[in-house]
Amino acid sequence: MSFDGRKVILDPEEMPREWYNILPDLPKPLPPPLHPVTKEPIKPSDLEPIFPKELIKQEMSDERWIRIPEEVLEVYRLWRPTPLIRAKRLEEALKTPAKIYYKYEGVSPPGSHKPNTAVAQAYYNMKEGVERLTTETGAGQWGSALSFATRLFDMKCTVYMVKVSYHQKPYRRILMETWGGEVIPSPSDRTESGRRILEKDPDNTGSLGIAISEAVEDAAKHENTNYSLGSVLNHVLLHQTIIGLEAKKQFELIDEKPDVLIGCVGGGSNFAGFCYPFIKDAEKEGIRIVAVEPAACPTLTAGEYRYDYGDTVGLTPLLMMYTLGHDFMPPPIHAGGLRYHGDAPTLSLLVAEGVIEAVAVKQIPTFEAGLLFARTEGIVPAPESNHAIRVAIDEALKAKEEGEEKVIAFNLSGHGYFDLAAYDDYLYGRLKDT
Amino acid sequence: MSFDGRKVILDPEEMPREWYNILPDLPKPLPPPLHPVTKEPIKPSDLEPIFPKELIKQEMSDERWIRIPEEVLEVYRLWRPTPLIRAKRLEEALKTPAKIYYKYEGVSPPGSHKPNTAVAQAYYNMKEGVERLTTETGAGQWGSALSFATRLFDMKCTVYMVKVSYHQKPYRRILMETWGGEVIPSPSDRTESGRRILEKDPDNTGSLGIAISEAVEDAAKHENTNYSLGSVLNHVLLHQTIIGLEAKKQFELIDEKPDVLIGCVGGGSNFAGFCYPFIKDAEKEGIRIVAVEPAACPTLTAGEYRYDYGDTVGLTPLLMMYTLGHDFMPPPIHAGGLRYHGDAPTLSLLVAEGVIEAVAVKQIPTFEAGLLFARTEGIVPAPESNHAIRVAIDEALKAKEEGEEKVIAFNLSGHGYFDLAAYDDYLYGRLKDT
Repeated sequence: MSFDGRKVILDPEEMPREWYNILPDLPKPLPPPLHPVTKEPIKPSDLEPIFPKELIKQEMSDERWIRIPEEVLEVYRLWRPTPLIRAKRLEEALKTPAKIYYKYEGVSPPGSHKPNTAVAQAYYNMKEGVERLTTETGAGQWGSALSFATRLFDMKCTVYMVKVSYHQKPYRRILMETWGGEVIPSPSDRTESGRRILEKDPDNTGSLGIAISEAVEDAAKHENTNYSLGSVLNHVLLHQTIIGLEAKKQFELIDEKPDVLIGCVGGGSNFAGFCYPFIKDAEKEGIRIVAVEPAACPTLTAGEYRYDYGDTVGLTPLLMMYTLGHDFMPPPIHAGGLRYHGDAPTLSLLVAEGVIEAVAVKQIPTFEAGLLFARTEGIVPAPESNHAIRVAIDEALKAKEEGEEKVIAFNLSGHGYFDLAAYDDYLYGRLKDT
Repeated sequence: MSFDGRKVILDPEEMPREWYNILPDLPKPLPPPLHPVTKEPIKPSDLEPIFPKELIKQEMSDERWIRIPEEVLEVYRLWRPTPLIRAKRLEEALKTPAKIYYKYEGVSPPGSHKPNTAVAQAYYNMKEGVERLTTETGAGQWGSALSFATRLFDMKCTVYMVKVSYHQKPYRRILMETWGGEVIPSPSDRTESGRRILEKDPDNTGSLGIAISEAVEDAAKHENTNYSLGSVLNHVLLHQTIIGLEAKKQFELIDEKPDVLIGCVGGGSNFAGFCYPFIKDAEKEGIRIVAVEPAACPTLTAGEYRYDYGDTVGLTPLLMMYTLGHDFMPPPIHAGGLRYHGDAPTLSLLVAEGVIEAVAVKQIPTFEAGLLFARTEGIVPAPESNHAIRVAIDEALKAKEEGEEKVIAFNLSGHGYFDLAAYDDYLYGRLKDT
C-alpha cells in the first residue's frame, strides 16, 4: 500500500481474492424470483437455456465468500486495484471540515465499473463451452464492457443497441467494434421479436426493453450462445463487490473510518459493489449508506415494493423489488444508466428494511456538482456518477454548517469522456431540470 | 514500488523531484534560435513579452537538473507517477520471445502527456502575476491540457482552435470548456491577424499557423497575458522528462534493462520526455533510441536540417531543425499531433548526430497495430501513439525471427477515446494509406 495523503494505492497482492455475497447477511430471506408464466418460484434449470451453471449457482448461493478465479484476477490486474482518492481540492473549494474520498472505477479500459462483472461472466461462460454472448445496451457502457471482456477470452459478442442511441452515440458503437463486438441496431430483423415490431412500425427507434427481448431470444435460439446482463441480478452485484472490498481495505490501511457511503443507483450494481461489503457492520460502526437516484426515475423513493417484470414486455422472471411499473418510460435524462423502472431485489429489500437510505436528485444540480468536481479534481465524471457527487457535496456542506469533521466516501463509477454532449447542454443552458 | 509481473507502480515518494535538462549533455552546442527579422541570435528579453522569466531561463539553462516546484508536484500527484506496464497479452499474441513494456501517459485527466508541461507553464506564469494564457490547438490535445492546468491555478485560458476542428471535433472543445477554457474558432475577429485573413477570405477554415499567430498576438497585446506552447521548445521538452525519469527508475527497480526505446514524434515532446533521460548512457549500455513519424509528414527522415520558422507565417524565431519547409501542408492524417513541418531543435541535433534513429510509417499499419493493442491490452491508443506501437511490434517480430529475448519499451502518449472516428474509418476501410 502507498498513501501520499491523497491517493491510496493497494499493492497487487492486496487485491481481494473473493467476492462478498450479501445473501446470507440480509436481514430477512430474499423473496424468490417467480416464473413469468406459472408465477411459481423459478428453478435453476429454468435459467439454463441462457446462463451458465456456475452463474446460476452464484445467483442462489448462500456462501458468504466466493473465490475469484485466477484467470479473472489476471484480467482484473489490467486496471485493478483501483485507487481510493481523497478529494482535497474539492474539500478546499467547499471550505468544508469534512474529508471526501472517492473510489475511482473509471480507470478500466471501458471507463466504468461494468467490466468487473463482464469479465467474470465471460470467463464462466467460456469455461462451460459457450462461444458467444448476447446482450443489450442503451448508451453503450455495458455493451462496451462485454465486448472488451469477451475479446480477452476469445469469445464473440453480439450487442443489441437501442437504435436511437446507435445513431446518436456512434463513439460507443465504435468502441465496441474496436474490441471486436458486433453491434446491431435494435429493433432488428435478426430476431422474431425485432421483426414483429418492425412489421408494425418500420421506423421504431427502439428501447432497452425491446433490445433485451432480442438478445435473450438470440441466446435461447442459438447453440453455444448465452445471454449476459449488466445489473440487477445477484451474481452481477456479487462480482462488483471487489470495489467495496478494496475500499474497505484502503480505509483500514490509512486508519480512516467512513461516516457515510454514497453511490448512484440505476439497477444497483455500482452502488452494491461499493457499499455491500460495509453493510454487515454499518449499524454497529455508525455508517450511513445512501443510494442516489434521478428525480426523473425515482424507483426507490417513489416506487412500490412489489413483484414486477425486469423487462418491458414481460418475458423475464418476476422480481420482488421497488418498481415504477415495467411500462414506465422515464424522460430522456443524460444519466442513461439510471433510467430503469426497477432495482436489484437485494437492494430493494435493504431499502425496505431501512438499512439503506434513498434520495432522489434533479438533473441540473448533478451537473453543477460534476462540473465543480472536474474543475477541482480534474476528472470529468459520467452523468450517472454526478448523482453520487451531488449528495457527497451536500453532505460536505451540511458538515460545514454543523462544524463536523465527517468522512464522506462515494463511488465514482465512470468517466464522462463519452458524455461530453451532456456537459455541453449544461454549459449552454439547454439542460432540462427534470 | 509494487510489481505483479505486469504493472510497475512507483510509490508517491519515488516520484522524481527534478526534471532532466538535455542541453549540457548534447554532443555539440545547440545552434541558437535567430530573431525572425534581424537574424541575430535572440536575447532573453526578446521573449519577455510572451513568456515568464523562469521559463526563458529554463529554455537557455545549462543546469543538468532543474527542481520541480512543490506546487507542481502536488498537481502531478493527481495522476502521477504513471504506470510502466508489461504488455504480456500483446507478447503472447505476437508469440515473440521479446518483452514489451509501455509507459502509459493516458491516465492524466486530459488523457495524454501534455499536462506535464501545461501544469508547469501555468504555475510559473501564475507566480509571475500572469492571469491568462493563450494558445493554439488543432485536434485539441494541447488546448485541453492547458485548460485543465490553468483552472487548477485559478487562471484564465484562451484557446484558438483551428476552425475546421472546432466544428468537426466538438468533444474536445466541450472538454476545454468543461474545465473553464474559452475556445475561439480561428481565424477569428478577435485579432488583427484573424481579421486580416477573414477580410480576404471569410470562409477560411483555419490552420495551426494562423491559430499560433492569433494566440501570440493576443498575448503580446494584452496586460497580464502570456502565450504558451505545447512542444518544440527546450523548456517544454524539459518538463516532459518526468516520464522517462520515472520509467528509468521503474526499470531499475524491477532489474530490467531496455534494449530499444520507442516514441512517436510530432514536435518531439512525448518522445523527448520518455527517451532523453536514457540518452547519456545509451551508447554505453547499448540502448537504441527510435523516433517514429508518419510517412505523410516525414520531417526527420526526408526533411532538411537547417534554420526555419516555427510557424507558417514566419513570425517566430528561426530554429535550427529538421524541416519540410514552414509552408509544408501535410495531408489530413488522423494523428493530428504529428502533423508538424519541423521538429524540436534538440531532437533534430541528436538525429543529425546519429544518437537517435528515425523511421517513418504509413497510416494503415499504425491502426492495425493500435487495434491489436486494444484487443490484447484493453487500452484504445491515440492515433499518434499507434506509430510507436507499430514500431514496437515490428521490433518484437524481428526479435522472434532472430530468436532474441529483447526488451522493447515505448511511450503510450495518450488514449484514443476522442479519436474513435479514426478507428471507425479504419474498421470500415475508409482510411487512406498515406
